[in-house]
Amino acid sequence: MANNSNVKIIPLGGLEQIGMNITAFEYNGDIIVVDCGMSFPDDEMLGIDCVIPNIDFLRETKDQIKGFVITHGHEDHIGALPYVLKEINVPIYATKLTMGIIEKKLEEHNMLDQVKRKVVKFGQSVHLADFRVEFIKTNHSIADAAALAIHTPVGIIVHTGDFKVDYTPVYGDAINLRRFADLGKKGVLALMCDSTNVLRPGFTPSERTVGQTFDHIFHEHTDQRIIIATFASNVDRVQQIIDTAVKYNRKVIVEGRSMVNVINVAKDLEYLHIPENTLISIEEIDNYTDDQLVLITTGSQGESMAALSRMAASIHRKVNINPGDTIVFSSTPIPGNEKAVSKVINELYEKGAEVIFQDTHVSGHACQEEIKLIYSLVKPKYAIPVHGEYRHLREHGKLARTMGVEKDNVFILKSGQVLALNESAAQVVGTVPAGSVLVDGLGVGDIGNIVLRDRQNLAENGIIIVVIALQKGTNELLAGPDIVSRGFVYVREAEDLMEDAKYVVTGAVDGTLKMHPDADWAMLKGAIRDSLTNWLWDIMKRRPVVIPIISEVDL
Amino acid sequence: MANNSNVKIIPLGGLEQIGMNITAFEYNGDIIVVDCGMSFPDDEMLGIDCVIPNIDFLRETKDQIKGFVITHGHEDHIGALPYVLKEINVPIYATKLTMGIIEKKLEEHNMLDQVKRKVVKFGQSVHLADFRVEFIKTNHSIADAAALAIHTPVGIIVHTGDFKVDYTPVYGDAINLRRFADLGKKGVLALMCDSTNVLRPGFTPSERTVGQTFDHIFHEHTDQRIIIATFASNVDRVQQIIDTAVKYNRKVIVEGRSMVNVINVAKDLEYLHIPENTLISIEEIDNYTDDQLVLITTGSQGESMAALSRMAASIHRKVNINPGDTIVFSSTPIPGNEKAVSKVINELYEKGAEVIFQDTHVSGHACQEEIKLIYSLVKPKYAIPVHGEYRHLREHGKLARTMGVEKDNVFILKSGQVLALNESAAQVVGTVPAGSVLVDGLGVGDIGNIVLRDRQNLAENGIIIVVIALQKGTNELLAGPDIVSRGFVYVREAEDLMEDAKYVVTGAVDGTLKMHPDADWAMLKGAIRDSLTNWLWDIMKRRPVVIPIISEVDL
Repeated sequence: MANNSNVKIIPLGGLEQIGMNITAFEYNGDIIVVDCGMSFPDDEMLGIDCVIPNIDFLRETKDQIKGFVITHGHEDHIGALPYVLKEINVPIYATKLTMGIIEKKLEEHNMLDQVKRKVVKFGQSVHLADFRVEFIKTNHSIADAAALAIHTPVGIIVHTGDFKVDYTPVYGDAINLRRFADLGKKGVLALMCDSTNVLRPGFTPSERTVGQTFDHIFHEHTDQRIIIATFASNVDRVQQIIDTAVKYNRKVIVEGRSMVNVINVAKDLEYLHIPENTLISIEEIDNYTDDQLVLITTGSQGESMAALSRMAASIHRKVNINPGDTIVFSSTPIPGNEKAVSKVINELYEKGAEVIFQDTHVSGHACQEEIKLIYSLVKPKYAIPVHGEYRHLREHGKLARTMGVEKDNVFILKSGQVLALNESAAQVVGTVPAGSVLVDGLGVGDIGNIVLRDRQNLAENGIIIVVIALQKGTNELLAGPDIVSRGFVYVREAEDLMEDAKYVVTGAVDGTLKMHPDADWAMLKGAIRDSLTNWLWDIMKRRPVVIPIISEVDL
Repeated sequence: MANNSNVKIIPLGGLEQIGMNITAFEYNGDIIVVDCGMSFPDDEMLGIDCVIPNIDFLRETKDQIKGFVITHGHEDHIGALPYVLKEINVPIYATKLTMGIIEKKLEEHNMLDQVKRKVVKFGQSVHLADFRVEFIKTNHSIADAAALAIHTPVGIIVHTGDFKVDYTPVYGDAINLRRFADLGKKGVLALMCDSTNVLRPGFTPSERTVGQTFDHIFHEHTDQRIIIATFASNVDRVQQIIDTAVKYNRKVIVEGRSMVNVINVAKDLEYLHIPENTLISIEEIDNYTDDQLVLITTGSQGESMAALSRMAASIHRKVNINPGDTIVFSSTPIPGNEKAVSKVINELYEKGAEVIFQDTHVSGHACQEEIKLIYSLVKPKYAIPVHGEYRHLREHGKLARTMGVEKDNVFILKSGQVLALNESAAQVVGTVPAGSVLVDGLGVGDIGNIVLRDRQNLAENGIIIVVIALQKGTNELLAGPDIVSRGFVYVREAEDLMEDAKYVVTGAVDGTLKMHPDADWAMLKGAIRDSLTNWLWDIMKRRPVVIPIISEVDL
């Protein structure tokens, strides 16, 4: 395939997990990047704050990059922007609310002045070199989500972003299916479509059904205080809570930092419509009776420091859970959070609260029938499933084939693969670096597998540090062994054990020096480590990390 | 309430979680104990192997205890026996398969000769002091599960054990509902009923429905190798796999240590019926083609070292997953295991396998309608929901009231509470010690909150050890500072950082000694810890555990 007669699609993340979405598109040497997300650390990534994509490829092609085009304001689509923009400062294009959320984020990183931004309306396009990127209205669990039609000289690529089909959205229009149909009529080269819910048959219900549930709950709990936990970014959900509160004459308190932040942005940009005298501050809570109040709060995932979790654990500064309080989880646990959510629910129950989670949430992602609908309208030549784990992508590939995409035209890519395509052919032509970069505090990428493995060892077994001071040259033992442990046993109740350990170490050092009077330190350290490790395994079947340290005293 | 005119129910576990079931019953100074289970460690119990109940109460009342009565052979009902029997060696009473599994466990702990055991048949009773404990046939996800009717001088207490109502069980009889009805007619003082599935409406389907699914799968995958992962202890599930294999002329390989163990016990005791020439050893796998084979394996929960996980990760010594292999998860993820299971499924998909988990599992626990059925037959005066988290017990309490139990006669107990009851009254009359004891290697109970907190710190932040050698008396710095870290940064790529850290420590030590020439070690250690901690937070927003160690050299 000749180089400039095709467009290259280069996903740098988002194909091995639901998270960290970022994809580069290259044509004739020019590059645009769709989304720039982060992901949350896996269980084994101990102490890691968040995970961002490896952008070695973007670093190398820095001068060719024309901009970031963002589909919507969720962390897995915008979260890596502050990190990436520090190195690759190109303009950002996004819809109004998405940009508002990005700006809040850049502000927190003191970067707002340094980044060019352009708000795009649905139906509008941005021209970036030979790319024309058209924003198409969709529905999702955050307002202002866009699909992108990327018009290139070799054809149109449709990227759905995260979407669902909601014929009766709470705010704004339904997904612009007609535009998808128009594009399909023109001819679409490739469809990159959301795979999150591809394992689920049927249709995702409308966001509005949740509003009906809220109405029932408010109707049946007129005397109780109602506390609703949901995702901060689900502005339409928040709107429905506020509408219901107004209908039932309740004041609304917003609690939890991320909830306050997003609601402020959405209010300022008029994505949220809150009648005057509806919102009150949490400081005013004691001026109202239970039947006059609704709290909207973070913590729907059981996050230990979120507002609802603190209320449940009785460590919230203003809100105590009382018998009769009605707590609504307007969410489902993200895989991995099930036990944390259960813990909070049990704590709430123990305080006598009623906990409701039936019919109080709908997904923001398309199920099988919606995905089929998009295929039937767009009729792409190539299908490139995105936004899923491998099993989602694979099942999505099967679905695409049932919708008429040729077997050889379905591409299940891995992050880092370079897919070159045009009207007549498509193939993987190479790979670029891709993968995860771990963020811990201010450190980006300085924690790797060795450090994580050490953390895992420390976590499971604790550590024993053995210090001896030896005279330089003579190897005479001047001090020690001193033994310090952490995470191994509670030392105050294990004094005998620690004394025995000293004895074992002294024996090992003496023995080694007797056999090898000029033993070097590696040998001595090995003797200490082995003797102590073996002895502990024998007597208690444990394997703490043993660190021998030799202080060399030069007299 | 006079002391010997009532029976006391003393749950020592199982009421805050689904796990670690153990309940003492006391009458007139005599005690029997129902079940003796363990639980699996929570995420924050780093490095812990398993959790067993605090048995301080049993220790104190050792001479009064007449025996352990076991309802069935799951770990959460028998797992703590080897630990507890070491201190409280009284006879065990259980049905045949349950006893077979217990004996396997005692054998592994070299305790088989020291423990008295008596196998009980359904319909039989054991007499222990004034207690008569009758074993009643139920259905569950392990064969030979029993409910207990505990006949006492003040009335009958029915303990369901773990149960479901299966009218068409795979092996043996359906639950003996007639006996529950008879007891109800006689009059039942209290019902202690399984709460696991109380949040689920309807009925749990029969185990036999899974067999129908297996039949479909075998029918539709005649050419593929079939690998089925399930719970080792679900003997009836294994029987159905074997029956289907025989029907479709396939040989069966059993893989995974716990699977092999349980199947051997069940086969020896004739709970499993395997036609000759059906089982083959894994060493013979290469003598057969894919269409001639079924593997039954452990790993249905994504456990990293289980057989299926090793196959998926290409580290199994005999089995490689090939395109076309059909993998059946005959299980649902236990809460907390979702991500591990997903990981294995993705790995299997990546190898081209087909993964099936629709209709391949049913629960072993009663849903709402089954629980109601038991209440309607037993008609207890008191309801004491067991086997659940707090939210399950609470919802179970509500259900009991709808079934006619008086509000004041529903007892939501906490482990350790002592409930005294007789025909005319019931009340909590005190508490005994209860809670979790952590097992790590051979250590039982020597890991407490301080050690776990240290492990958590080490896991999240790593450790930095600073060693200096000082001359006794003069405080002259003889060696160091030497700095060693683990789980903090990859030292080879952070040499500058470690050099700077030495400089910070040296500054802190010099500064302290200049101000306080006779500074004691606590002061010096504090200075080292504070200076390094603050400096690292400033430059990289990280907080490793800093351990200063001073070697005292006496010259």
